[in-house]
Amino acid sequence: MSANESPVGQAPTQPTAAYESAFMKACRREPVPHTPVWFMRQAGRSLPEYRKVREGIPMLESCVRPELVTEITLQPVRRHNVDAAVYYSDIVVPLKAIGIDLDIKPGVGPVVEKPIRTRADLAQLRDLTPEDVSYVTEAIGLLTRELGATPLIGFAGAPFTLASYLVEGGPSRTYENAKSMMYGDPELWADLLDRLAEITAAFLKVQIEAGASAVQLFDSWAGALAPVDYRRSALPASAKVLQAVAGYGVPRIHFGVGTGELLGLMGEAGADVVGVDWRVPLDEAARRVGPGKALQGNLDPTVLFASKEAVEAKTREVLDSAVGLEGHVFNLGHGVMPSTDPEALTRLVEYVHTQTAR
Amino acid sequence: MSANESPVGQAPTQPTAAYESAFMKACRREPVPHTPVWFMRQAGRSLPEYRKVREGIPMLESCVRPELVTEITLQPVRRHNVDAAVYYSDIVVPLKAIGIDLDIKPGVGPVVEKPIRTRADLAQLRDLTPEDVSYVTEAIGLLTRELGATPLIGFAGAPFTLASYLVEGGPSRTYENAKSMMYGDPELWADLLDRLAEITAAFLKVQIEAGASAVQLFDSWAGALAPVDYRRSALPASAKVLQAVAGYGVPRIHFGVGTGELLGLMGEAGADVVGVDWRVPLDEAARRVGPGKALQGNLDPTVLFASKEAVEAKTREVLDSAVGLEGHVFNLGHGVMPSTDPEALTRLVEYVHTQTAR
Repeated sequence: MSANESPVGQAPTQPTAAYESAFMKACRREPVPHTPVWFMRQAGRSLPEYRKVREGIPMLESCVRPELVTEITLQPVRRHNVDAAVYYSDIVVPLKAIGIDLDIKPGVGPVVEKPIRTRADLAQLRDLTPEDVSYVTEAIGLLTRELGATPLIGFAGAPFTLASYLVEGGPSRTYENAKSMMYGDPELWADLLDRLAEITAAFLKVQIEAGASAVQLFDSWAGALAPVDYRRSALPASAKVLQAVAGYGVPRIHFGVGTGELLGLMGEAGADVVGVDWRVPLDEAARRVGPGKALQGNLDPTVLFASKEAVEAKTREVLDSAVGLEGHVFNLGHGVMPSTDPEALTRLVEYVHTQTAR
Repeated sequence: MSANESPVGQAPTQPTAAYESAFMKACRREPVPHTPVWFMRQAGRSLPEYRKVREGIPMLESCVRPELVTEITLQPVRRHNVDAAVYYSDIVVPLKAIGIDLDIKPGVGPVVEKPIRTRADLAQLRDLTPEDVSYVTEAIGLLTRELGATPLIGFAGAPFTLASYLVEGGPSRTYENAKSMMYGDPELWADLLDRLAEITAAFLKVQIEAGASAVQLFDSWAGALAPVDYRRSALPASAKVLQAVAGYGVPRIHFGVGTGELLGLMGEAGADVVGVDWRVPLDEAARRVGPGKALQGNLDPTVLFASKEAVEAKTREVLDSAVGLEGHVFNLGHGVMPSTDPEALTRLVEYVHTQTAR
């Protein structure tokens, strides 16, 4: 499949069944039989069957084994009856694939051996080719055959978030090194993000060409930026990524945490669907994003630790705030937390489906 | 000094010099000779003289020694020429003072021996009396003599943030235990916050009666809540605290991080000055807060790692967004980061003073 200039909603080479799913219709802002549901991090630590198949296998190793990726991606679809699968991976996978020396340490997160701090350090970044991630192509081939009518969402980390990891060398609460570069050497910062935009775009193209029906660009940490800084120092690279895959006609979801002030800009960057964390009610989010885009979200993931009745009451609030949206994909406002009871997730899918059945 | 019903701006027993300072005038939304500046966490780890006097003294121990508290509180006033001192303490000090078994572990934060998870656990909380914190009264007595015309800001953690620590048992990124109680047992949660409101109000009263010219209620983690949950489950207790000290006529500052969606509600809770983190431009914050309140903020603290020119450019953006505010207290959008160069802070005070001199 090659890129073409068709707008979202005209992707003739999409498998018809997935293309006609509730999830895809909601992304395209078409009428839906029910509000579609999926969960960020649905494939992962909350599931005992996930912990079982991951036993003894390091995180990044698990991401490069096509059969394992396929199994883990399918697990929540089988269990929860969600309306979409999300490709099991990690945002640092494309960086690892081009040879950056990094690892995901349990309980810590991604740790980069040689953080990028100078122009010379940019030499660590080279273009990503489909051969670098042949396991992705293989896994998505397996997945689309298994998934049938259930669409698969591909994903990648956005350049700002990837840059934050690369410059900090690991997770950070303050991003002081990344922001030092952003404020102190804006040219180097822009060049770094531009390189990451190319890599990210190439990684998403691989996923779409292999059969992903939609993509989500995760800018996990963009919420650390004031709007003026996001516009100047993060948006251009995200826009480059989203523009690079525009021609495929697959819906592009754009999400970050704590991004209430950035929702309009994240839409402007080229999203078809803007993901909203739980801090902004969906009706207010719609006002900020403006017309012509669907929204995704936004139940506080910690609500799932409360009683069934409390979950339903809070879910009702989300559904009420979504009345009148052009398109709504139900999701949590952030990823599933590891200690979440999987049964609560299954019940939540069922609840949203029955409450919104038309 | 006893509480009286005078509104903010009429506190006849205030020392005249401090009462007439730029900081106090800005809080009262009166004309100022220059925009006043202070920094959250100005008394602390960024200063070598602080690290020196703290050597070998655990954090909570340092908070109960009046002479040490006085020295640490004065250090940034001497060094930076800030317009206000902020009382050196920690938000868990009043909890420790009523006998909660907790400690501040270096590199971790407050750790509570027996987290509050059930109604029976509430028995750990008793009323706070001035005798429990006699070191506060003593230190503020010493401080006000030394400070002269420089006002002293007292402070306390807000009930939601204190409850989060007590329920989690320590710092958390997700507040899953606290939110489980909040969503799952709203009555227990409300009772917990109400008890904490009484303790917090008593603690602020001690500081005001000892001579604090203003107070700041820190709801550090309120930004984890959606507006509907903040209104229902956090605001009532904060309002009770702020109302309890309203009669003293000292300005009440109310601040949290990531609270863009909550600014209006945090004002409604009874603040005279609403603190704004760096994510929301001050003009937009003013729109959300509405008339009749001053604002405090909001330079991204990581900007201080960049060059002098970059700091000035970003400071200029903050000052430009503050044009037209009824009252503006310049501050960072969050606390000073430990690795900040103290000279950068001194230069920043000087820059704001010269740029805003009238």
